[in-house]
Amino acid sequence: MKIIRFLNEQGEESLGCNFENDSAEMLKGSLFTSLENSGERVGVKKLLAPVSPVNILCIGLNYHEHARETGMEVPRYPALFMKNLGSVTHPGDPIEIPVCCMKKPEVDYEVELAVVIGKSAKNVKAEDALNYVAGYTVANDVSARRWQAHAGNGQWVRGKSYDTFCPIGPCLVTPDEITDPQDLKLECRLNGEVMQQASTADMIFPVSRLIEYLSEDTTLLPGTIILTGTPSGVGFTRKPPVYLKQGDVLQLEIENIGILENPVTEPS
Amino acid sequence: MKIIRFLNEQGEESLGCNFENDSAEMLKGSLFTSLENSGERVGVKKLLAPVSPVNILCIGLNYHEHARETGMEVPRYPALFMKNLGSVTHPGDPIEIPVCCMKKPEVDYEVELAVVIGKSAKNVKAEDALNYVAGYTVANDVSARRWQAHAGNGQWVRGKSYDTFCPIGPCLVTPDEITDPQDLKLECRLNGEVMQQASTADMIFPVSRLIEYLSEDTTLLPGTIILTGTPSGVGFTRKPPVYLKQGDVLQLEIENIGILENPVTEPS
Repeated sequence: MKIIRFLNEQGEESLGCNFENDSAEMLKGSLFTSLENSGERVGVKKLLAPVSPVNILCIGLNYHEHARETGMEVPRYPALFMKNLGSVTHPGDPIEIPVCCMKKPEVDYEVELAVVIGKSAKNVKAEDALNYVAGYTVANDVSARRWQAHAGNGQWVRGKSYDTFCPIGPCLVTPDEITDPQDLKLECRLNGEVMQQASTADMIFPVSRLIEYLSEDTTLLPGTIILTGTPSGVGFTRKPPVYLKQGDVLQLEIENIGILENPVTEPS
Repeated sequence: MKIIRFLNEQGEESLGCNFENDSAEMLKGSLFTSLENSGERVGVKKLLAPVSPVNILCIGLNYHEHARETGMEVPRYPALFMKNLGSVTHPGDPIEIPVCCMKKPEVDYEVELAVVIGKSAKNVKAEDALNYVAGYTVANDVSARRWQAHAGNGQWVRGKSYDTFCPIGPCLVTPDEITDPQDLKLECRLNGEVMQQASTADMIFPVSRLIEYLSEDTTLLPGTIILTGTPSGVGFTRKPPVYLKQGDVLQLEIENIGILENPVTEPS
């Protein structure tokens, strides 16, 4: 099932499925207990990020090709950082270049497979890990490279946490429709031009191993979202570098999930 | 006012004040809108962390003496990392040494002044910043040094986010009782022995500047907690190093706030 979260014509929030022609069938219940299709088709006024996460855990350097392009070593363990919850952005809403990033272009895109944890997970083994997944979606790990690097004193959180820096969507796809999360094509297009194109098969640590690692002696609460890292082709490694600017449009697509589209705006 | 969050004799959660002799006066309302003293005194069965945070933002290397003892440079900007929300621990509850930290001792204590944001804050100037503070409390930024350092690939989140790694309490003190957050004595005692003893006057970036920095182009949601960094005297810089072990008792005290006490346990 492809689950959307949306505002209806009355501005009320709801979950839905079978979204087409600006309407969807309303789902009753919760993502983390049980969902039932009411059969009632209602108008979809605005798509929201399909989940409102309780923690945003992010993995750096998780594709072989991306590790190579950054010149960094392949990590022994997954590199974990987080994003501020306030950075979550809905499909279609603008990625706003922060005022403090206007001195010199530095804001970059990163297409990522995002995994939503559906039930409390602790000390989960890799072979059992996918049973804890509520679904998969697309995320953009928007990054201010100067604040991520030297201005952040080596810690990535500041450069990754500005408002609008975490677009998520357009829908959450339940695991029955993703038979193998390590066999998905993913792509990022900037103004129609393909910038990133890869398969999740290139991940250094697969989703199951990430859940094992992140849940080691650590409770992953339902609603935790894991951004599983980005493939090669990001803007800052290009010659010349490509950074986001006013009027850009990003389309992030993952096979079997959909397209997450966001425009880019600059402060006036 | 000193605000506690607690379970009453019926196991129901409540806020209270004037806590003494295992009872407190019940507060009605919410920390982030308005609170009213009901005048009703009820039994306190168990103290909880005074807030259930929505984000845990943490500052590294924010005391001159601590920067010196680690051998790291004084940062130009605050070094920001985060802790998983699942790491929050109540006063009196054990800090559990993770199984994955049992190969070699590595778990360390860090006494910190913690600041709770009371209303949505974005692009707040330092001179106005303290008006956004709901209150102050004590936190222990428990840290697994091996996972924080080389095993974490330079990112500190993994080593800082194991379950029980964020004790908070014992109470939230409203700003009217903390006339100057940069003039508070803070101390960490391990089994009665003083390990850290300093004043918040030694902070490199004062609380007001931290809020300015963290809210730059970034919404700090009500319930965001900021751990403002630890002074010198942590275990890993000692000769020989001191790490936490089964049976230890930590008492973290900040002037005008109180004592946050937690025992340490190891997996059996």
